[in-house]
Amino acid sequence: MMFAPPLAALIEAFQKLPGVGPKSAMRLALYVLKQPASYANQLAVALTQARESMAPCSCCGCLTDVHPCATCSNAERDHRLVCVVPESSDVFALERTRHFKGVYHVLGGLISPLDGVGPETLTIEVLLQRLGGGEVEEIILALPPSTEGDTTSLYLARLLNPLPVKLTRIAFGLPVGGELEYADSLTLLRALDGRQALV
Amino acid sequence: MMFAPPLAALIEAFQKLPGVGPKSAMRLALYVLKQPASYANQLAVALTQARESMAPCSCCGCLTDVHPCATCSNAERDHRLVCVVPESSDVFALERTRHFKGVYHVLGGLISPLDGVGPETLTIEVLLQRLGGGEVEEIILALPPSTEGDTTSLYLARLLNPLPVKLTRIAFGLPVGGELEYADSLTLLRALDGRQALV
Repeated sequence: MMFAPPLAALIEAFQKLPGVGPKSAMRLALYVLKQPASYANQLAVALTQARESMAPCSCCGCLTDVHPCATCSNAERDHRLVCVVPESSDVFALERTRHFKGVYHVLGGLISPLDGVGPETLTIEVLLQRLGGGEVEEIILALPPSTEGDTTSLYLARLLNPLPVKLTRIAFGLPVGGELEYADSLTLLRALDGRQALV
Repeated sequence: MMFAPPLAALIEAFQKLPGVGPKSAMRLALYVLKQPASYANQLAVALTQARESMAPCSCCGCLTDVHPCATCSNAERDHRLVCVVPESSDVFALERTRHFKGVYHVLGGLISPLDGVGPETLTIEVLLQRLGGGEVEEIILALPPSTEGDTTSLYLARLLNPLPVKLTRIAFGLPVGGELEYADSLTLLRALDGRQALV
């Protein structure tokens, strides 16, 4: 038995989402068909409108529906402090802390030669242009402690080192609520390496 | 920081899908925005078209885009044998076995007084009408071994008992590949209860 073509098309479309296999895709499709038609329409309209109106900010690269984005155009943010992150989702995560008052720069990924992602595919050129303005005083690299994150940090450090700007990287160590006993060795190693003087 | 309205609307729509929480919804939304616009459009069109063209078969209740459905209108299927299942997804699961040659009847749920689902909300009336034709010789109840499945089986057994039709229920027991050691007690009880003579 084959699925009816409209159902098969919906399952196929759902299956392209990350973490959705054939079985989940069928479950999602049948769920949508069991709901009132208004839900399918709501999701369809939301998809089309979001895809049409959201684009990377020409300044920082974060997804936005206004240009420049709300953060870049906000005079109350500290434009001397730029936090460099891989993706827009990382901006949203940092904004949830409600404590960072600087601005962002979204790279659009991390350097990963194995995946064919070189520095030229990232928004590094735009970052250099931003620094050319002379307003930026500190760049915080908020890149993850992975091979790709470390490679990208090293690349940016070498590139930005000659510029008159302070360069820092976020701290790695034991997460809040984490226990030494359950932490992996690499995390503990980073926690020891990053130890701070008490007073 | 609030999400931009088009992004917030997409996250909200994704979040209504089963098993998708706020974090997964954001992940799915950002994934869609990172893909070429053709993907968002493909999913939007698939949603609208599937919701518009798929409806329960007037005969068996299974989701279909042609009426009656391909199974009900197939003269090569054994219309004397009707397998009663809760949902369309169960029909698709049974069809994957490629061995059942009868037809189906989708109840549209299971009797569950706690959830306010009574027999009158299921397609039991339609099932009785099908049986009125006199063609059906056996009804197989393929309802799960749960409180709701057992209740529904019992209800149907009482209702259909006076009719000149053979009534059976699928077997419950140890799944293929399952081990006695890891099976729960209720499954083992069902396996013992349903034991078969070895010739």
